[in-house]
Amino acid sequence: MNELSKIIKELIGLTESEWKVFYKQLKRQEYKAKTLLIEEGKTAETLYFIESGLFRTFRNLDEKDITTYFACDNQFITVFNSFINQTPSSEILEVIEDSIVYEIHSHNLIQLYKESSKFEKFGRILAEKNHLCALERTLTMQTKSAKKKYLDFLKNYNKKIVNRVPQYQIASFLGIAPESLSRVRKEIFIS
Amino acid sequence: MNELSKIIKELIGLTESEWKVFYKQLKRQEYKAKTLLIEEGKTAETLYFIESGLFRTFRNLDEKDITTYFACDNQFITVFNSFINQTPSSEILEVIEDSIVYEIHSHNLIQLYKESSKFEKFGRILAEKNHLCALERTLTMQTKSAKKKYLDFLKNYNKKIVNRVPQYQIASFLGIAPESLSRVRKEIFIS
Repeated sequence: MNELSKIIKELIGLTESEWKVFYKQLKRQEYKAKTLLIEEGKTAETLYFIESGLFRTFRNLDEKDITTYFACDNQFITVFNSFINQTPSSEILEVIEDSIVYEIHSHNLIQLYKESSKFEKFGRILAEKNHLCALERTLTMQTKSAKKKYLDFLKNYNKKIVNRVPQYQIASFLGIAPESLSRVRKEIFIS
Repeated sequence: MNELSKIIKELIGLTESEWKVFYKQLKRQEYKAKTLLIEEGKTAETLYFIESGLFRTFRNLDEKDITTYFACDNQFITVFNSFINQTPSSEILEVIEDSIVYEIHSHNLIQLYKESSKFEKFGRILAEKNHLCALERTLTMQTKSAKKKYLDFLKNYNKKIVNRVPQYQIASFLGIAPESLSRVRKEIFIS
């Protein structure tokens, strides 16, 4: 909670009393590995701030499991397009390891937006950060070789994600074949 | 201007007097084809709403020209990561055809954010829409064949972009080789 409080206060400059308003809307929850927090076809109603744990979103596309996002400690996660538009999700949010989160329901977040421009600012900055992250990822997909994609992944992603996520999930996340990822890993770790 | 007024009023439910506050910060400008509005290494200080025209952002990466975004009538464009973080741009914003825009300086936009939660809401919704658009594009890059990428491009992008942008720019935008795009176009338009 300290981390969340720090991150949010820094992000939008909340006073202690504004933080209390925000905090009241949060619920602390523990989830077991393998739990599906958002299922395909259901609407994402909750935004999760990860105190500790490991999550991913993925799609079932033509019977393939395609990871679209990873998140761990001190990050936010949900299925953003479903959460923002309040439409059925085409992705699944899965708990990879036992995790602890602070969660906020979309109704409550929208209520906060209405109450103060500080909370609108939180929403704007969160969306901007997510947008920049997605832009970076698009550029990676658009331009980089399998090896460069994996090297950048090693460099830019949290060690917890790098070390504990199954390789097939990393491969689909990077948009490369599992065999290419094996080959690249051999090249990198042997050389 | 009618379109911009309509879009913004719908987006954030502005009153006439709030709209006037917003409108005061806008400057109408005409730009000739080939103008570079944001250059590599410079900071993007302006957000553009396109009244009529055609734009793209691109990067010079390993001496390759990689298009990262197209926009035309009634859309917003800038180099978002540079604009949001106020850091030097690694992309270039180019006017493809003679265009008319309404532009707002980042200082003025930030000032508006401070003045009312309505304008924060504008920033949030703009960032959310951009985020969703980037997510969709990432998924395309991650999962689709060259043919499917191009078919989706034909279906989802404005006809002005589809018909008037050079093929090599479309190819790099879709993350496929120009020869693959030629092959795919032959398959689609002959069959």
